[in-house]
Formats: sequence, structure tokens, C-alpha cells
Amino acid sequence: MGKRKYTIGVDFGTESGRAVLVEVATGKELASAVYAYQNSVIDETLPGTRIRLEPDWALQDPEDYIRTFKRTIPAVLKQTGVDPADVIGVGIDFTACTMLPVKADGTPLCVLPAYRRNPHAWVKLWKHHAAQPEADKINDTARRLGEAWLDRYGGKISSEWFFAKTLQILDEAPDIYAAADRLIEAADWVIWQLTGEEKRNSCTAGYKAMWSKREGYPGAHYFAALDPRLEHVVDDKLSRTIYPIGDRAGGLTPQAARWTGLRPGTAVAIANVDAHVSVPAATVTEPGRMVMIMGTSICHMVLGREEHTVEGMCGYVEDGIIPGIFGYEAGQSGVGDIFAWFVDHTVPPAYHTAARKHKVDLHRLLEQEAAKLKPGESGLLALDWWNGNRSVLVDVDLTGLLFGATLATKAPEMYRALIEATAFGTRVIVEAFDQNGVPVNELVACGGLPEKNKLLMQIYADVTGREIKVTASKQTPALGSAMFGAVAAGCAAGGYDSIFEAAQHMAHLKKETFKPIPANQQVYDKLYAEYVALYDYFGRGANDVMKRLKQLKADVLAA
Amino acid sequence: MGKRKYTIGVDFGTESGRAVLVEVATGKELASAVYAYQNSVIDETLPGTRIRLEPDWALQDPEDYIRTFKRTIPAVLKQTGVDPADVIGVGIDFTACTMLPVKADGTPLCVLPAYRRNPHAWVKLWKHHAAQPEADKINDTARRLGEAWLDRYGGKISSEWFFAKTLQILDEAPDIYAAADRLIEAADWVIWQLTGEEKRNSCTAGYKAMWSKREGYPGAHYFAALDPRLEHVVDDKLSRTIYPIGDRAGGLTPQAARWTGLRPGTAVAIANVDAHVSVPAATVTEPGRMVMIMGTSICHMVLGREEHTVEGMCGYVEDGIIPGIFGYEAGQSGVGDIFAWFVDHTVPPAYHTAARKHKVDLHRLLEQEAAKLKPGESGLLALDWWNGNRSVLVDVDLTGLLFGATLATKAPEMYRALIEATAFGTRVIVEAFDQNGVPVNELVACGGLPEKNKLLMQIYADVTGREIKVTASKQTPALGSAMFGAVAAGCAAGGYDSIFEAAQHMAHLKKETFKPIPANQQVYDKLYAEYVALYDYFGRGANDVMKRLKQLKADVLAA
Repeated sequence: MGKRKYTIGVDFGTESGRAVLVEVATGKELASAVYAYQNSVIDETLPGTRIRLEPDWALQDPEDYIRTFKRTIPAVLKQTGVDPADVIGVGIDFTACTMLPVKADGTPLCVLPAYRRNPHAWVKLWKHHAAQPEADKINDTARRLGEAWLDRYGGKISSEWFFAKTLQILDEAPDIYAAADRLIEAADWVIWQLTGEEKRNSCTAGYKAMWSKREGYPGAHYFAALDPRLEHVVDDKLSRTIYPIGDRAGGLTPQAARWTGLRPGTAVAIANVDAHVSVPAATVTEPGRMVMIMGTSICHMVLGREEHTVEGMCGYVEDGIIPGIFGYEAGQSGVGDIFAWFVDHTVPPAYHTAARKHKVDLHRLLEQEAAKLKPGESGLLALDWWNGNRSVLVDVDLTGLLFGATLATKAPEMYRALIEATAFGTRVIVEAFDQNGVPVNELVACGGLPEKNKLLMQIYADVTGREIKVTASKQTPALGSAMFGAVAAGCAAGGYDSIFEAAQHMAHLKKETFKPIPANQQVYDKLYAEYVALYDYFGRGANDVMKRLKQLKADVLAA
Repeated sequence: MGKRKYTIGVDFGTESGRAVLVEVATGKELASAVYAYQNSVIDETLPGTRIRLEPDWALQDPEDYIRTFKRTIPAVLKQTGVDPADVIGVGIDFTACTMLPVKADGTPLCVLPAYRRNPHAWVKLWKHHAAQPEADKINDTARRLGEAWLDRYGGKISSEWFFAKTLQILDEAPDIYAAADRLIEAADWVIWQLTGEEKRNSCTAGYKAMWSKREGYPGAHYFAALDPRLEHVVDDKLSRTIYPIGDRAGGLTPQAARWTGLRPGTAVAIANVDAHVSVPAATVTEPGRMVMIMGTSICHMVLGREEHTVEGMCGYVEDGIIPGIFGYEAGQSGVGDIFAWFVDHTVPPAYHTAARKHKVDLHRLLEQEAAKLKPGESGLLALDWWNGNRSVLVDVDLTGLLFGATLATKAPEMYRALIEATAFGTRVIVEAFDQNGVPVNELVACGGLPEKNKLLMQIYADVTGREIKVTASKQTPALGSAMFGAVAAGCAAGGYDSIFEAAQHMAHLKKETFKPIPANQQVYDKLYAEYVALYDYFGRGANDVMKRLKQLKADVLAA
């Protein structure tokens, strides 16, 4: 055994960036450091100006990403005293689709005085939701032309994705579009800043930009139909060379070495996405085990050796998660968000007082009270559509529903019913995969929720009828990025030659797992049947009351 | 014009009794006095004992009724200085069915030491809910025998009613049943105490004891089928002589004159029921105008000259409300109760703080916030079944439903949606009558809610498309009883010869009315169509999920 080697993963989140320094041999996380972005999420006025943004806009400042490198990597080196010479690789993951227009040398348009006051020159964050008309046009045009790639995305492209944002720039700021030599995912842009090389990754290209390994991007005829000015967008402003997850992007430039305190030439991995990079960090590098990244929403990831169309998934991408395998993604658009809404908007003062008295978080108090109930005892049932339904219905216009309330209904009962509803929503997704050729035998959970709420985890096990394991790491995206850093360095440098090997050594699960309790499963099977009947009735067109209510609301507000 | 004359109405409520002294010529309420029952609602232990009651029991002490006379009537005389010689009549109204077993001389069994420790010897209050098995048997037997009278009650007899309570006594305390020479409504019992005459009224007989003017009680064959020991219950313990509302029961006995400070012989009206007596006090003595007594629940009363079967009504009774006319009753089992549940169980601290800061009731604060919303703006829709559905579905196993919630949904929006849901529930009832030969052209509201919540009243007008008038009196039951007191006295004594005349002079409406706003009506027509679709889907068997959830709850709790 040679000297101990280390790798660093940097996870670029919505509000902050986080670096984690990890021991290559064991996956042990030795230190982490967080940088809260100076300009955070820009959704009111452009920094340093009074220029107001319209509703649904969400921007970021690319200089915050560089500051993340400058603040966090030196910090973890300092905390641990690790010799930079022993840090063999760096990997990063990012929110996506988070994209920006840049000059040919990589300079973001928003740092140039000529463009700085134009909102379209800035980074469009994943949750920038102002490109819905453009997404509608993308979908309508694809359907009209019978584009086969639409099936890979469950039949619908999201307004959050790359070409919706691109088209919005073209529609609203053709000068910015013209000035942009390149349009690029922030994930790939930070790799460019570290290595001096523009190398685009297969994950964002596949999941967010309609690219596939076998067919590439949609054809020029499609882009021309979308807008004649877009006909050559891929060749003009993107790239047809896409690098698979797990490749080495290059070595740190001398400048990036100065930012970080690492050595020039340190291996840098191809960029990745926060959710997707969590999969190998959750020990999953083969089909059959679904990873759930559980937080405000849930991202469901499962691998498959074959191509299958599964209703309502967000996408499937070869090389999208693990090289050489199809990565399938699905999602629930509201989970922790719904519990947070409940706690903020419907819990009376007595529970707040009790939580303060017992010095526990209000979620924890409600969990404790809800845990005293048996499955089925509340008489309640909910449809978890407070934030629409991503998989499998792909319908943002669906809304939440609470069933079975009486004058005796209390907050912990409603809280439990909402947890159960999200578990039923996961079961729909699990069964959609499992019954369409993408087996799901076991669940692996990571993210904030599994740490916070054991009742929720047990309910998910009982509802899905599957054992749930939990990742040992609390920062799986950063760990996953660090793992890819070790792979970029390769075995010869003290790393690994594949993400499979890296996962074997570096990714770990907790000993404690959640196993289905048969008595609970029996009750939940009955409730799930009711859930599915309501899901289909309100979600598949038998009664479109939710959409009519939304439309009426829009009409009333417009009147 | 002779000397001013007065009449006294006494309203026996659930927690207290109230006397109001009223000027005969004008209906002006000169004074009122309330007596809070010493033993209130007896639902835990029998007074002066450790004898525990079972769940769902609710008893009262008949001595509290006598104390009400002794405390309140002298008090209103004293407050006003009115000469007892100028008080020409007394009327009373009561909750119903509230009934008790007594000896032949009217002595309640519960005051006799031999029976005092037996719960069945006491008054069974209207909300005594322990006779459901007996009600089920009454309904099953009636359906089996094809009893036509069942149709008059929307096809279902309630566990609250007279023979369910009677049968429970027989089932559980045959000794009490045997010792009871008479079984009698408390309404009629207090008239007996005032006048020395057992005279039973047509309102409780009709609405609560399956009696009708044309057919009398169900036949002995039916009672024998119910239980052989009940075959002659009517002749043995009730009476076939039923006096119409509006008749004179008799004159005050010397003893009752001593209790009250009134003159012996003062005219006393036949007893009445709190809800029904409110109808003439709300100026309604003819068909076409529906009275809504709006509080924790809503009681809907409308008059008709013909006999019509209307789905889900609580009953129709000739002479039941106004002599010579059919009185139709329907109801919503949860209205103010639902708003109270909402305020108690789902309003977060910020609203409580704001209410305290602005020194307003929390309901008022929510009303103010909800009033800022346009109809349809919340995107929410509810089914108002938190306490089951009385009319028109007559189904206690239905439960509440809230539709259309999003992560942006706030408490005032939900509060307004619940108000709207109860208004839609009223519209279903109004239309059921209106479309089945019992016209409803206008609504007259009384009770607590119209005073408290103007937004609610406007919403009811907008939703029903009918003008709503509001009674001038805040104590319509007591006023109505006083009016019947004046009728019992008759014109010759300075009163009136009919309730029609009494209503013309003594009953008044406020000037302010609530008229439908056409723009709101348009939106509410759309929402009502959605409400009805959900009402039918979940209430009429297409999807019995609510009942299955209730059954599952019961199974789980029993396991």
C-alpha cells in the first residue's frame, strides 16, 4: 500500500456550494466546507441594479461558482492538513438544467459590461420557470413532426430544460442569443474553468437537452421548425461531442490550481448532476435497485441494460448515470415541500407550543404523534399533488386533495396522510418501472428526509413492499463527485479505473434498514387501491375538475 | 287601543333556558333572562353519584326546566316592571327529540329514589346518540314491512328520535319501561307542569314520533314486529290526541303562577320545537320562503300546501310548523361546526397573533381575509361532509374533502372554500325542494351565523341565486314562542287569533338583505356544477371510498 490518497467532490446546490474531501481507499469523508452564494438565487432584481425580474424568473451569478472553488477547497485542505500532492482527483456535480450564454473563451456574457444589465445574459437556474410557452412550442412541434425522441422523456419536455431556456433567450433577447458564442450547462462551464477545456457531459445532454448516445441531438429540420434561427443551434453554440460520465475532462490549469490550492494537472472528472451522481454514491451501479433522493421532491433513479419506455418518466439516457448502462429517471414534484406547506400553513398553535416545550422541531413532534396511529386509523387519504404530478402523469395542473376529514380530524392524522400519499406516489412509480421491464427489487434512500423522519421511511417500506436501505453519507452528491474524481485520476494514480470499483470501496450503506411490516402492508394495499382509483379518476381525464378549477382561477384573476 | 299587553316566550336550549318578554302589538323584545342549567348536559356521571354513563349518552335533569321558569320569568318581569296582569300568554319551545319517562301524574321517574340511580330514568337529550342499534331496527323493520310513513322522513328514522330512545329503554331497562306510565317529549312535559294538562303537540309528534295528522301513528302490527312488548306503546304510554301548533294548552296552574310570578289562568300555548317555532318569528307563514336556522348546523324549513316527497328531507308534517299547512324540514349536519373545526385544528399561529393584534375574533379575521378573494380565485373546492350529510343523501358515513390545494394555498382560501361548500350544500337542498313541487323563492336566515359573518351570507346569496333576508330578532325561538303565547291568549284577551296575524305584527326582518351579485353567480354556477359532480360521484355509490375508509378505520381500531 502506498501513501493515502484523497479526492474532492464539489456539489453546486441551489443556495450554496459544498466541497468534501474523501479518502480514496475507504470513502471516509474527512472534511467538508460550504460557501453560501453571495448572490444566491436572483429572483427579484439583478445584482447591483434596480432592474426587476418578472415572476417565475430564477437566475444565478457564475462568479459565485468560482468563489465556491476558492473558498471551499482550500478550507477542506486546511481542516485536514492533507498534502495537495495526495489529492488525486476532483469531481463536481451541479443542479440542472442550469445554463448560461458565454463567449468563445468561456467568459459569461453577464460579466461583460455590455450585457450585464440584460437578465438573459445571466445563468438561468434550474428552477427558472418563465419558459413555459417555449416548452409548449417544443412539445407541440415535436408532436407535430412525430419526433421519436419525445418518447424517451415520457412524452413531454419540461420548461426547465435546455432548449426551452435557449428558445426563451432567442425570443426575448435575440441580441444576447447572437452574442453568445456558446450556450452551456453551468456544470460543464465550471469544468471548463477548472481545466481550460469545454467538454460536455452525457448526463445533462441526455436528460436536459434531448441528446442520445445513439441518435445524437434532434435533427436540424426539427430545430428549423421550432424557429428558423435555431436550425444550426447545436453546431453553432453547443457541441456534438459528448463525453460519458466517468471520463477524465482534463487536469487543473495553473489558474484553477491557484484558486483551489491543489496541484496543476490534478485530474478533473467530466461534470455530473447532483441527483444522478448520488446513484453510485448510494452503492448502486447495477440494475434492480432504485435510488430515491428524498428532499423537497423525490428523484427516482434506476438502471437498466435495455431500452424500455415507461409511462411518465423524466427520461432515460445511455451513459446518463453509469457508463454503458441506461439510466432511468422519474420523480415526484412535491414531497418534503408538501410537509413544509402543511407545517407552515395548517398547524395550530398548540403544536407549536408543545414543540417548543419539548425542544423538538415541529416536524419531529408531528412525526411522533403520527407514529402513534396505525395504518388506516385516521380514515384519511390524500393525493400528493400539491405541486402537480411529475411521474407518471407529467401534469403540472393537478392539485392536492385531502379525503375523509371529520370534525375529529387532527393535525398528526393529516400529516401522516400526506406522508402516506407521497409513499403511494412512489409506489406508482416503482410499479410503472417494475411492470415495464425495469425491475425494482430494493430501494436505497439518500437526501435529507431519510435522516429526519424514520416514520416516513417505515411507511415507504410498508407501502412499496420493499426493503429500504439508507446511504451512510449525508452528502451523497459530493461523495459521488469525489468518487468520479478518483475515477478520473485512474488506478495508476491511486484512484480507480471505473465507477464500479470506486463504488465498491467508497460507497456505503447504514446497517439499519427499513423492512416492510406485513400487517401494515395489508392495510396499505387496501389504501393504495383507493389511491390508485382516485389517481386515475382525477389524473387521467375521467374528471378534469382540478384543471377546470385552475383554469377558472386563471380566468377570474385575469378578469 | 287598550292597555299595552305582553307575552312571554321561553326557549329551552341545550345548555340553558331563556325567557323573553315581548310587546304583543309590536313584537318588541323588552327583556330577556337566561338560566344556565345546574346539571347542564349529563354525559359523564349521574348527578350526585359515581354512576358513569357510556359513550354517546346525553341526559338532562327535568328539575332544571322547572328552575328555568322560576328564575327567568320573574327576572324579566322585574327588569321591565310589567304588571303580570298585562302578560296575556306564555309559549315555550324545546330541543327535540328530548324525552323522559314519567308517572301518571307527570312525576319524572328520575326524581323518585327508586329509579334515580338508573340512567334510563332521566331525560334523554336530543343529542343522546346511544340508540343507533334501535334506530337501525326501526328502519329495517319498516322497510321489511313496506311501511309507507318511512317516505315522509326521506326513508330513514334517526337514532335521535322518539321510538329509538323508547326502544333503548325497553331493551336496556325493561323495569324503567314498565314503571313509566307515560313517555313524553320534554316540550310537552313542561306544558303539563305549567297547565296541569298532558297535551301533546303536532310538531314533535310529527317530526320525531312518526305521527301524521291523516294517518296517526304507525299501526300496532308494526310496533309488534319491532318488539312484541311495544305493540300497544301508543295507547299505553303516549296519546293519540295530538294538538296542532297554535292551540291553547290551558291556563297557568296556581303552582305555576307562584313559580313564575304570573297570574293563574294565564294562557299557555301548545309546546313547540326551537327550530320550527322560528319560522313564523322569521315572518314566514306561507309557502315559497325558506327559513334557514344557521348555526353549528343548518335547519331548513319551508311550507307547502301539498304533500310532496323530496329526496333526503328530515320530514314533512301537516300542522308541523304552521297550522293547516305542511311543514317541510331538511338539514345540513355540519356548517358552523366545520368552520370551528377549521379554526381549532388548521390555522397557524400567525393568524392567531394577527387576530389578537387587531382585537378581532379569529373567525372574523379569516372572514376579512377571505372577503378579499374573488369567487373561484382560490382554486379550491370542498365537499362539506365533515359531519356526514343529512340532506339530501342522509348518510352519516360520508366525510369531508378538500380539493385543489397547492403549495401556495393559505388558510383564508381554505376557510372561504369551506363556506362555499356549505353554501353549495344549501343549494342542493333548495333545488331539491324547488324542483319537486315545494317552491323556494327567497331565503330568510336566523341563528348565530348571519349575525357573525356577512361574507358567508353574501356567498349563500350568490350561490343559491336567491335574495336572503335576515330576522331582526337575535332570539327567534323565544320570540316565536312568545308569538304562540299571544295566539293562545287570543284576540279577545289582547292577543291574536292566529299565528298569521301574530307574525304580521310581531315578526320583523332587518332592512339589510343579501342580493345575489350576477358576476359572482356566474362563477359559482360553474363551481356548483363541479360540486354536484363530486357530490354525486362520492355520495351516490359510484365510488364509496369514504365508506370504505371509515370501515377500514373501524376494522383497524377493532383489531
